Amino acid sequence: MASSSKKVMVTDLVLRDAHQSLLATRMRTEDMLPICDKLDKVGYWSLEAWGGATFDTCLRFLKEDPWERLRKLKQALPKTPLQMLLRGQNLLGYRHYSDDVVEAFVKKSAECGVDVFRIFDAMNDMRNIEVSVKAVLKAGKHAQGAICYTTSPVHTIEHFVEIAREMEKMGCQTIAIKDMAGLITPARTVELYQALSKAVKVPLAFHSHTTVGVANICMYLAVEHGARHIDTAISSLSWGTSHSPTESMVVALRETPYDTGLNLEQLQEIGFYFREVRKKYHQFESEYAEIDTRVQVSQVPGGMISNLSNQLKEQGALNRMNEVLAEIPRVREDLGFPPLVTPTSQIVGTQAVLNVLTGKRYKSITNEVKLYLQGRYGKAPGKINETVRSMAIGNEEVITCRPADKLKPEMHRLRDEIGELARSEEDVLTYAMFPEIGRKFLEERAAGTLKPEELKPPKSAEATALPAY
Amino acid sequence: MASSSKKVMVTDLVLRDAHQSLLATRMRTEDMLPICDKLDKVGYWSLEAWGGATFDTCLRFLKEDPWERLRKLKQALPKTPLQMLLRGQNLLGYRHYSDDVVEAFVKKSAECGVDVFRIFDAMNDMRNIEVSVKAVLKAGKHAQGAICYTTSPVHTIEHFVEIAREMEKMGCQTIAIKDMAGLITPARTVELYQALSKAVKVPLAFHSHTTVGVANICMYLAVEHGARHIDTAISSLSWGTSHSPTESMVVALRETPYDTGLNLEQLQEIGFYFREVRKKYHQFESEYAEIDTRVQVSQVPGGMISNLSNQLKEQGALNRMNEVLAEIPRVREDLGFPPLVTPTSQIVGTQAVLNVLTGKRYKSITNEVKLYLQGRYGKAPGKINETVRSMAIGNEEVITCRPADKLKPEMHRLRDEIGELARSEEDVLTYAMFPEIGRKFLEERAAGTLKPEELKPPKSAEATALPAY
Ligand SMILES: [Co+2]
Ligand SMILES: [Co+2]
Repeated sequence: MASSSKKVMVTDLVLRDAHQSLLATRMRTEDMLPICDKLDKVGYWSLEAWGGATFDTCLRFLKEDPWERLRKLKQALPKTPLQMLLRGQNLLGYRHYSDDVVEAFVKKSAECGVDVFRIFDAMNDMRNIEVSVKAVLKAGKHAQGAICYTTSPVHTIEHFVEIAREMEKMGCQTIAIKDMAGLITPARTVELYQALSKAVKVPLAFHSHTTVGVANICMYLAVEHGARHIDTAISSLSWGTSHSPTESMVVALRETPYDTGLNLEQLQEIGFYFREVRKKYHQFESEYAEIDTRVQVSQVPGGMISNLSNQLKEQGALNRMNEVLAEIPRVREDLGFPPLVTPTSQIVGTQAVLNVLTGKRYKSITNEVKLYLQGRYGKAPGKINETVRSMAIGNEEVITCRPADKLKPEMHRLRDEIGELARSEEDVLTYAMFPEIGRKFLEERAAGTLKPEELKPPKSAEATALPAY
Repeated sequence: MASSSKKVMVTDLVLRDAHQSLLATRMRTEDMLPICDKLDKVGYWSLEAWGGATFDTCLRFLKEDPWERLRKLKQALPKTPLQMLLRGQNLLGYRHYSDDVVEAFVKKSAECGVDVFRIFDAMNDMRNIEVSVKAVLKAGKHAQGAICYTTSPVHTIEHFVEIAREMEKMGCQTIAIKDMAGLITPARTVELYQALSKAVKVPLAFHSHTTVGVANICMYLAVEHGARHIDTAISSLSWGTSHSPTESMVVALRETPYDTGLNLEQLQEIGFYFREVRKKYHQFESEYAEIDTRVQVSQVPGGMISNLSNQLKEQGALNRMNEVLAEIPRVREDLGFPPLVTPTSQIVGTQAVLNVLTGKRYKSITNEVKLYLQGRYGKAPGKINETVRSMAIGNEEVITCRPADKLKPEMHRLRDEIGELARSEEDVLTYAMFPEIGRKFLEERAAGTLKPEELKPPKSAEATALPAY
């Protein structure tokens, strides 16, 4: 029957992207476990619960073993597939890893509980996700390819379609559009999903952030034009820099061929639970997490604007903000229009600040820009400005192969380096991801001195006078 | 050209419904005037700035003369049509007024600055809006008929279409669907606007609240299916029990035939302004202003649930909430399915509480239910339960005429009653709307003792550490 084949499947982001977007990734495992029983009964297609910045935050601030979190969640959520976000060859760290590390990391993640791997590369360079996709398939898990959405003269519909085709060929079982900055618009969504549904056979997913306040409209249109997977966040951790509310999307798709079939009352209980949890983390709330449409004017993501304004403020140069906002698209063009997402957003942003503050473009050039121009992050989507390249790296070698092809196996070295501090393969991978804070974590664990950052006391009861009912 | 005829016109609700929904209608004229110059340059089709609960709040809490506010806004917004919300024969009060009061009120509002009158009746009884629509047309102003949206066995698409036809015949120049509870869904929106665009020639408007988190999706679909007017609220006073963000809808409709043509950067500046203003009123924020999908389970509006839970709590009966929620639809059915909006929401809600707490349905019956069953509010959309009617009013007369037909002219009496305290016709109308608080206001004004309620000091600066940029 047509109607059953159009059923939309829901991934709730509450345990990863939602609190990463709204609460600086600070939600602790102890606040996840009590609601897992209810979450597990909903019938989600998956729960995104690991990866992204959670690994880093667990080690750095929460003093939780991220692998331990994963195992606990898996145990508490026996029926619901667990999903993680993986930055391709960067895994969860900030550099390219050798293939043996990638393979070991994926294998271990799968063993500890990850069922669905959403894999992307900041440059949309498919060679950077190849090894992880293969490793996921080898582990018998679900590999979802995620295309970073952005706008530029080279990011045409055909360009995205081409990437999707490559992902399908690579064996990705689903393909997601990942619109991290809230750049996608309804008109563009329709075009894109129409084209993608024609081009590939695997199911399509839609992931966006509600920063601009149009993502739920786009999500609805994506579904009307072929998406069968949507990413939502339970209402009390939704909207603004987070995502479309789960309950709302369930309502929106009712009485349509795309009905999710999820039970609204169950979801409401989960929403009430996280409303209380959110209060515990009030110190991490930012008023800049609300609707911010500036990205639609400057094409610079709101989060990046906030970071840049902090950076400029520290240097007493906040008044140069508009110049920096104007410079960013120019640097981005020079670099061949990379999507602005970690790490390319930092690379472009910092260089733009330098270009403005030094008074002369590329008078000073960051190391990251140099590495980028050497091809060390992969292939740029568009053409590199060769004048800028030669200013930056002169005659140094430019690699055109997959960056990780230049890397020798390193698991052995990493194992040696961390030595006794690692009690398991997971610990070696922790060290691999974050040499400094990973080691510090393992040392403190050995010494029994792990201590999570302190949380400020809850705000006055004033705001909680009314009962949920 | 097709594209220009499909242009969508925007009404911003920031000066009325938005702060009524989020800040208990407390925004003061002093916080509106400084931004009027920018608001006036946007190119809104209209700004809703008066009526609804603002009149009451001005008198009761802010100690502002509502007529004075209107004149000041008109002066500060010379280019943008000012819009008000008018409850038909109830005007801005809570009873039916005689026709001479309605006529005087509309005439004076038009003189003082209202250009667009959005007129509705809680029962959708067209006879209750007839006189005000005529008065608006006589004053040479724009009459918009607003249909209260609700769900019930009698509220079919045909039913709404029939009302729209009557409104058009009556001379309404535009027709709005007014979904005060966030009940409308995408599927229903498409059906409704398809049918309405076929049935009437006048432009259609869409007004909803984002309580359920689907209103912006519905708004987009309404536009795709014929709506040419949308109601939005500037982002910093949007979402939750308020409305779809203005900036977001401007983005959403770009690159479509429905482009609003509004300038995003101008709107962003206005958004930043109101973000600061909102902080001043933090004591009126409610955590229950956020996404609440319960109305989609119980069909009982979220605001009504909060009121009822307060009412039950006071009586130590909060544990009866679920019984009350189950009783409400039954009472509503007995009363012929009125939409749940002021005053019918209170009439139905209070009776449902009584039915539960007294242990026997209709053992005790409120005066309002009695008046309702006498036909004093107008004609119910569906059939009244005659057993309940005879329990309530026995053999008392049931009127079938327009309720106001039973009312004698009363301006003369009102003028006499308020006497010297009224310095103008406006003052008489103030007294007419609110005999007690209106008189008190006029007395305090005469005595020079008007004093607005106190605002709590702003919260700590902590939350405002980051610059807008
Ligand atoms: Co995301
Ligand atoms: Co409203």
